[in-house]
Amino acid sequence: MNEKPIGIFDSGIGGLTVVRQLRKVLPNENIIYLGDTARLPYGSKSVDSIIQYSINNAEFLLSRGAKYLVVACYSSTSVALEILVQRFPVPIIGVIQPGVRKAAVLTRNRRVGVIGTSLTIFSGTYEKAFKAIDSQLQVMGRACPLFVPLVEEGWLEHEATEIICRAYLNPLKDDDVDTLLLGCTHYPLLMKAFRKVMGEINYVDAAVEIGVELADDLRTNNLLNSGGGGKLSIYLTDLSMNFKEIGERFLGEPMTTFSRVAIGV
Amino acid sequence: MNEKPIGIFDSGIGGLTVVRQLRKVLPNENIIYLGDTARLPYGSKSVDSIIQYSINNAEFLLSRGAKYLVVACYSSTSVALEILVQRFPVPIIGVIQPGVRKAAVLTRNRRVGVIGTSLTIFSGTYEKAFKAIDSQLQVMGRACPLFVPLVEEGWLEHEATEIICRAYLNPLKDDDVDTLLLGCTHYPLLMKAFRKVMGEINYVDAAVEIGVELADDLRTNNLLNSGGGGKLSIYLTDLSMNFKEIGERFLGEPMTTFSRVAIGV
Repeated sequence: MNEKPIGIFDSGIGGLTVVRQLRKVLPNENIIYLGDTARLPYGSKSVDSIIQYSINNAEFLLSRGAKYLVVACYSSTSVALEILVQRFPVPIIGVIQPGVRKAAVLTRNRRVGVIGTSLTIFSGTYEKAFKAIDSQLQVMGRACPLFVPLVEEGWLEHEATEIICRAYLNPLKDDDVDTLLLGCTHYPLLMKAFRKVMGEINYVDAAVEIGVELADDLRTNNLLNSGGGGKLSIYLTDLSMNFKEIGERFLGEPMTTFSRVAIGV
Repeated sequence: MNEKPIGIFDSGIGGLTVVRQLRKVLPNENIIYLGDTARLPYGSKSVDSIIQYSINNAEFLLSRGAKYLVVACYSSTSVALEILVQRFPVPIIGVIQPGVRKAAVLTRNRRVGVIGTSLTIFSGTYEKAFKAIDSQLQVMGRACPLFVPLVEEGWLEHEATEIICRAYLNPLKDDDVDTLLLGCTHYPLLMKAFRKVMGEINYVDAAVEIGVELADDLRTNNLLNSGGGGKLSIYLTDLSMNFKEIGERFLGEPMTTFSRVAIGV
């Protein structure tokens, strides 16, 4: 039994969709979430900056006693995961590999579609991760920069959302992918719209797969908190006008305790 | 004659639409542009942070000899303009007041629509600025958070753009506004789509009005650079993957000289 918290960070509040999933599958675990809202979005920052911010974030969570780190930010996972793993003494899981492993298992025709923000897709990280598992997999990546603002606007089933989904996803449909990997924490909220365009294929939600792998790993390494706990602490580096409303949409429960902290300054 | 540069800052590269306009009406002026890309978007930051960042930006431009400051950022103008004016010894113009003055002159039925990002609209700054000129004006504000990502995606005449424009603008049409003030540096690129929805009403582009007022003011105060000059220097606090492509769309000319600088750290 280990009462220390799981530490999880993202550039903003999108990573709360991962927290939501972790609280479902690991209800006894204490969780510390750090959203670096003062410096979001990482996707428009340079690689150097993203690495520096990621190190700052990890250091903050470790200073709070984290026994395990979850990097819920796609930009950080793309460019900084290996550096964090080398630098820090706790196990670290990124937001990319669990979904990749699941998609590689699910696909029958070995054509997988991946959707994400521009940086995530253009970085080629997903392609590399898939190729490491199965060099014969065909990976079709599509950058979908309008999905995040659509989700934040709350237009989950708007007429415009369906048209934008078709514009982004039709090329993947034409390519006959049988598995779609959602490569951004915001995207699970658009599942209904994705299904309308892509039909009954396999959908892989990274947050679900992180929960599965993390639970396995905690169990194997005897790191589970089998006792009480279940405490969630949320830290944000800046508080915007509507973070609570949007955050609760991601988290699926009221945000009761949150604090503003200064990181890396 | 005064060869010192005009200093202009924005949270990102959207303010280059203002630079474009200044270079059109004041071709002899030297211009220094500072885009605080490392800390964008200001709209999701707290008021305290926006004030601090704005002071940092102004100090940088003054350290480079700016004779005049243009605050091309709506968030900064909303919450920090008065503080900057009190604090610094050069004339300072914001991005809000010139458009307001023009719209107040143009409207016949005294119903003006204003569109902008969420912070700009919800801050109430526009309403206050209009009321200071004419307390009888009816000001209808609409937050349009999807317009910026649409412009950055380059979907200026996409089917989705028209639907999103209708969703945002129809309430203003129903309210019978005869003048629409574009309260965001990105929006002039969507003019064609706006006209399709709103028809032949008055459109006010803040960048154009800043150019008019600035030229007047430089002339009146004998600050014009009547000699050669016409040099443009662009400073950004971080360089993202696609800043050059998007920046040139705003600027309307190639971005030849740009540097990365650290501000306020």
